[in-house]
Amino acid sequence: MSLLIVGTVAFDKIETPIGKTEKILGGAGTYIGIAASYFSDTTNILSVIGDDFPDKYYQTLHDHKINTDGIQIIKGGKTFFWEGKYHTDMNSRDTVTTELNVLAEFDPIVPVNYQNCDYLMLGNLDPKIQRKVLKQLKKRPKLVVLDTMNFWMDIAWDDLLGTIRMVDVLTINEEEARQMSSKYSLVKAARKILTMGPKYLIIKKGEHGALLFDKEENCFFAPALPIEEVFDPTGAGDTFAGGFIGYLTKTKDLSFENMKRAVIYGSALASLTVEKFGTNKIAYLKSDELNDRLFKFKDLVEVDIKNLDKF
Amino acid sequence: MSLLIVGTVAFDKIETPIGKTEKILGGAGTYIGIAASYFSDTTNILSVIGDDFPDKYYQTLHDHKINTDGIQIIKGGKTFFWEGKYHTDMNSRDTVTTELNVLAEFDPIVPVNYQNCDYLMLGNLDPKIQRKVLKQLKKRPKLVVLDTMNFWMDIAWDDLLGTIRMVDVLTINEEEARQMSSKYSLVKAARKILTMGPKYLIIKKGEHGALLFDKEENCFFAPALPIEEVFDPTGAGDTFAGGFIGYLTKTKDLSFENMKRAVIYGSALASLTVEKFGTNKIAYLKSDELNDRLFKFKDLVEVDIKNLDKF
Repeated sequence: MSLLIVGTVAFDKIETPIGKTEKILGGAGTYIGIAASYFSDTTNILSVIGDDFPDKYYQTLHDHKINTDGIQIIKGGKTFFWEGKYHTDMNSRDTVTTELNVLAEFDPIVPVNYQNCDYLMLGNLDPKIQRKVLKQLKKRPKLVVLDTMNFWMDIAWDDLLGTIRMVDVLTINEEEARQMSSKYSLVKAARKILTMGPKYLIIKKGEHGALLFDKEENCFFAPALPIEEVFDPTGAGDTFAGGFIGYLTKTKDLSFENMKRAVIYGSALASLTVEKFGTNKIAYLKSDELNDRLFKFKDLVEVDIKNLDKF
Repeated sequence: MSLLIVGTVAFDKIETPIGKTEKILGGAGTYIGIAASYFSDTTNILSVIGDDFPDKYYQTLHDHKINTDGIQIIKGGKTFFWEGKYHTDMNSRDTVTTELNVLAEFDPIVPVNYQNCDYLMLGNLDPKIQRKVLKQLKKRPKLVVLDTMNFWMDIAWDDLLGTIRMVDVLTINEEEARQMSSKYSLVKAARKILTMGPKYLIIKKGEHGALLFDKEENCFFAPALPIEEVFDPTGAGDTFAGGFIGYLTKTKDLSFENMKRAVIYGSALASLTVEKFGTNKIAYLKSDELNDRLFKFKDLVEVDIKNLDKF
């Protein structure tokens, strides 16, 4: 089963209350790819970079058996760069710099060996680009997951609507769910968004966890693990998405029950990402770290309430 | 097993984005008492009111088999009154009016038939008053739960510290946990607060659920149920506390496992409270409503991740 990931491979420069970085490896595609690589054997990535992208970062992707054939390298171009500064609560941040660089002219070309992918993760990008990728595939993947953000709701609403109509799972955050639906209640927001195309909606609540909804009004909640010290929330949402689709790619089971497990795996990986800056944690997990984290999730919510009928 | 609840019995006037009320029945003691009454047969309440308190509100308490012998009625006095207006997100509110009235001179006198209580819930009040109650008891209760708020941290820090040293379970919200500990991470905040006396700490996160910590670094998370429409969050925290201690009073089991269940019962009741204004929902639960709600909580978080070792 092959997984195709479309998303930025980029440079980030990050400041949080704990410290700051120089230009380091970042990008949605990078986090999604690394997270998915813990489950998926064949992870193909489609992206664009400049020729300023260092070999050592390429090596990080290859160390995770990520196929980079689909990363266009623009000669003389500069790689997408984002600089951000997080506030004390780490739930909000200011963008200091955004240099689109090669991303401004990105025209995705899906390599032939990617065109039969079974699972597709469309990371946050212009919905036109996300749709262009979908249209180049030889067959409809078994599952298409799309991540987006308020920026596209503001400036490309019709394109976004056209694109999400073609996907199975949409992942957005709380405020975006409210903006997209004009509903404050997340229950009502989910109900409305699920009439717009996707079969499943994941509402990411950052340090407050994530909600999974389907059209049958099933609802599942995964908490975020309380973390001793959050160093850097960058990439947590993308890591979550990568773990989610990676787990589904590996298990080939698209039932709601299995999607719940996928949400937990994604959450567990995301809880690791934030413990170091950039990809410093998620790219170097030790053999038992993910399992240990999963057990912590289990402990965190497991409760025996079988005696309900006593009252 | 008898339960003693100390807390305000009051008038509230509430405005939320959904609507507003006239002066209605409110107060921490009221919500705690009503919630606990679904579990506890003997619920004693200690409070103070003016002679403006209407019989119909008394009747609401008696309908829940709440013993009101310990409610002092001050002749010519006026009952505590709070008026508040919630913001769109319902997580924050402005206090429009606070009239302490008879609460300003409240000198708690524990009736003889209350002095052997096994379980004690000290609702949010001046920590001096909370301590005065503790000192009048003939024996140390099996469990003392104390709720407080930032107001007392601001103006009565030393009194508060002296009082929480005497309790088993402290319940506060996220911001209060951070203020109290000077730690941003809730894990670190909990660790520090648990050196200040209480054996257990519950951090209430409103629509984001609740966390239970013990001194052995066990941590349990109960989500808040996503609600179709929140009408009025007033009393949700007190309902939670009432459900929590009511369940423990009924089950007489103070293990961490059973406290987890108590947190779920408290959360389930709180999720009902917010569905109508004031006590309109929680005071009139139909026979299966609590059970139905508990099953929804189970569904919300239940996931089978026994195959962890596969990866």
